[in-house]
Amino acid sequence: MKIGVLGTGSVGNALASGFVMAGHEVRMGARDAGNEKAKTWAAGSGRGGSSGSFADAAAFGEIVFNATAGTGSVEAVRAAGRDNLRGKILVDLSNPLDFSRGMPPTLFTTPPGDSLAERIQNEAPDAKVVKTLNTINASVMLDPGRAGGDSDLFIAGNDAAAKERIIAFLKEFGWKRVLDLGGLTAARGMEAYVLFWLFLFVAQKTPDFNIRVVKP
Amino acid sequence: MKIGVLGTGSVGNALASGFVMAGHEVRMGARDAGNEKAKTWAAGSGRGGSSGSFADAAAFGEIVFNATAGTGSVEAVRAAGRDNLRGKILVDLSNPLDFSRGMPPTLFTTPPGDSLAERIQNEAPDAKVVKTLNTINASVMLDPGRAGGDSDLFIAGNDAAAKERIIAFLKEFGWKRVLDLGGLTAARGMEAYVLFWLFLFVAQKTPDFNIRVVKP
Repeated sequence: MKIGVLGTGSVGNALASGFVMAGHEVRMGARDAGNEKAKTWAAGSGRGGSSGSFADAAAFGEIVFNATAGTGSVEAVRAAGRDNLRGKILVDLSNPLDFSRGMPPTLFTTPPGDSLAERIQNEAPDAKVVKTLNTINASVMLDPGRAGGDSDLFIAGNDAAAKERIIAFLKEFGWKRVLDLGGLTAARGMEAYVLFWLFLFVAQKTPDFNIRVVKP
Repeated sequence: MKIGVLGTGSVGNALASGFVMAGHEVRMGARDAGNEKAKTWAAGSGRGGSSGSFADAAAFGEIVFNATAGTGSVEAVRAAGRDNLRGKILVDLSNPLDFSRGMPPTLFTTPPGDSLAERIQNEAPDAKVVKTLNTINASVMLDPGRAGGDSDLFIAGNDAAAKERIIAFLKEFGWKRVLDLGGLTAARGMEAYVLFWLFLFVAQKTPDFNIRVVKP
């Protein structure tokens, strides 16, 4: 499958490399088509990888992953282009973290208390935005075993078929438990969770962990 | 031990009743000493229970639990009285949930992005505020088995000895795993988690659940 990855940071690199290793064709997109990090990744990725602008990556992908930093995500999706995303699944991993006042960060979505995923859906109204993978470290995203035993991934979105397709896609990478939290509004909870994750991270002394929902 | 419980809602009732059943003496405090809910609870609680004002409960308890609704917690602690709380452990279970714009709620602590626990510590500077128990439903607080298998409770606070004492206290109620997330700043994460909990609750269709941290 052809996959577009928006973002050249640790999350974008982990996803793009993991997808290529799984046999997919990946175009990594950056603000500028000549972005050095994206070109370096593509050069090292073998036949399956290429690089370009956000719009290039969005046009290339049958599915597009937003792996940009939260502060730039809405702008990145705007640059990707409404038409390039039309009818496609746009998987959003971004978190609305504001580090401008130091650590710990705050959520720049409160007020009003919405989510970055919803803002991205507004920016790409013809795409099917699916929120997932934002609650774990990049190292665990395509390698769930790295977090230890079976743990839970969460998913939210307004299009049931799109969520089902992404759940099936993630299963190929070892995710056995993907809990559907409902419509895209649930991204508000998933994004707020990341503030909690940051303190767990400090306490665990490793980013390679996750949580599992326990019930009787 | 003598325990003060601030709050007459479901959380206050669950804690106060559980503490009496475990052999402790409990005074439930409300804004008004004649609060009917507190009097009704005390009347039904047998010898171990009594009721009074927030100040009465704070003066009575060797340890005090804040189980008031988040929107009234700072005011409740102020009414409890700085002198009544001096040198005592004040366990804070409150969550800064703002339901004024409907569901889902937002956090009224963002901006500036602090936590209710820190505000309460500011209001009772001579108390040792310990944040815990706010990440689970009242039904699970003193009955962890109700959430299924072993799950995790979280704790934060600036006084290490106070946290150790509360961890030991909670162990008597069956909590085997209480993860120390650090100083009271970590309450920011624990309180933000509750937005995530609310969506888990909808998806799980029961409030009797919890999470467990998984790592290799």
